Amino acid sequence: MSLTKNRIREIRSLSQKKVRDELNLFVVEGLRLVRDAAESSFDIPEAFSTAAFEASPAGGDLIGLLRARGASCQQVTHRELSQFADTVNAQGVLAVVRKRDESAGELIRRIAPPALVVALDGIADPGNLGSIVRTCDWFGAGGILLGRTSVDLYNPKVVRSTMGGIFHVPVVTGLDLPECVVQAKEQGYAVYVTDPSADLFDGDVHFSERSLVVFGNEARGVSGDLSRLADERVAIRRYGVGESLNVGVACGILLSAHRRFHA
Amino acid sequence: MSLTKNRIREIRSLSQKKVRDELNLFVVEGLRLVRDAAESSFDIPEAFSTAAFEASPAGGDLIGLLRARGASCQQVTHRELSQFADTVNAQGVLAVVRKRDESAGELIRRIAPPALVVALDGIADPGNLGSIVRTCDWFGAGGILLGRTSVDLYNPKVVRSTMGGIFHVPVVTGLDLPECVVQAKEQGYAVYVTDPSADLFDGDVHFSERSLVVFGNEARGVSGDLSRLADERVAIRRYGVGESLNVGVACGILLSAHRRFHA
Repeated sequence: MSLTKNRIREIRSLSQKKVRDELNLFVVEGLRLVRDAAESSFDIPEAFSTAAFEASPAGGDLIGLLRARGASCQQVTHRELSQFADTVNAQGVLAVVRKRDESAGELIRRIAPPALVVALDGIADPGNLGSIVRTCDWFGAGGILLGRTSVDLYNPKVVRSTMGGIFHVPVVTGLDLPECVVQAKEQGYAVYVTDPSADLFDGDVHFSERSLVVFGNEARGVSGDLSRLADERVAIRRYGVGESLNVGVACGILLSAHRRFHA
Repeated sequence: MSLTKNRIREIRSLSQKKVRDELNLFVVEGLRLVRDAAESSFDIPEAFSTAAFEASPAGGDLIGLLRARGASCQQVTHRELSQFADTVNAQGVLAVVRKRDESAGELIRRIAPPALVVALDGIADPGNLGSIVRTCDWFGAGGILLGRTSVDLYNPKVVRSTMGGIFHVPVVTGLDLPECVVQAKEQGYAVYVTDPSADLFDGDVHFSERSLVVFGNEARGVSGDLSRLADERVAIRRYGVGESLNVGVACGILLSAHRRFHA
């Protein structure tokens, strides 16, 4: 069985944010990420794989799991797969996954203390967003609130760099962050805005039982209207001369400090 | 004055590692990085900038500083600059910088306690290497020992992601790391190898007055022959379910732990 050009174009079009938004779907590629998807409770309408992939032990197991999860699995040629894959080496498998819907309000309310929620305001680099999701997965953050000016969570490079974290950490996207922060404060959250010029340092923060930590754009930091809602402004203590830290690295250090404080 | 095609090709060829190695030169682009270079003690044989850049206040100041530092500064057209720049937007300025030479032995010996040296074994991603140099700059690490299997420090994407750290943190490149580690141990260094399966965690390490912290390849970690030389194997404590952390994030957390321990 061979895929029609039309069908290939359809799946290929999921590389565009507009189409992902319309269809509420995104694409994951490669054994590891597709396995993470299959082992999560995300809905997987379709998967495509090569004969060689299906013949491998790990591949065969994964296709079995995908079928059991209700995915419609189709065999495609290597050439067809490379036509709709984002990476040069899609490792023989690709799945179409349905996005999750949850409101910021639900997320904020359902996390049990010591609650740790991360808000991201205008993260521009896909690798940074992916790395932050991965870090939140490592530190067991309860969820991520993603502002509407950030790069799209379902961008293939972001999905890849989460290393599966996208299937473990609840992320609410497209948000009006000042509005969410006000909501979180009403639910008892303390709001920590990262700000390189702050004089409260990561190791000295008395993190609340309900903590919302806000990270900003790589160049401009957290925007003013959001920063004004801070209960505390927090910086990473500097010991050298560097002008700044990568936002993903700063996130790792602050989440580590939060977990140490509540350990 | 216009540049010959030959000259453009020469400078453009510095995008290749082989040529950078032969000529012992590398290229930096943009106001901020070129200013970091000019404010460092790195030798800058040449710089190229557009008339518009030179006419801007910051640009004029920088050209003055470059001239004072002995750089031969040439005006080029925007079109010429874009022919040898790596980024689409080179911001009107580009400098050719001479690499630094220092031996690993010298570096190890000259750093005063509490000495913190980072060794990198097979870092593959340019963004990760750049981010680690930037993090080392923030935490004031004494230097970096870069193994010969890592991505080239002078790769334009690495240089950019260091955010100027390449001009502040001494990095020795192309090293046989097991040999360096043996040397460091002879000089009283304790060697901490990051290893996700270790049962000693970042916050519990009693860092020596002379610490060498080793990070490995993104997929394979630290190689066996290097790992065997460890005094301690160290992991980042996990609170969630993520399988791993980005190596740059792990570096930030461990360097922060080291500085906290010796504060």
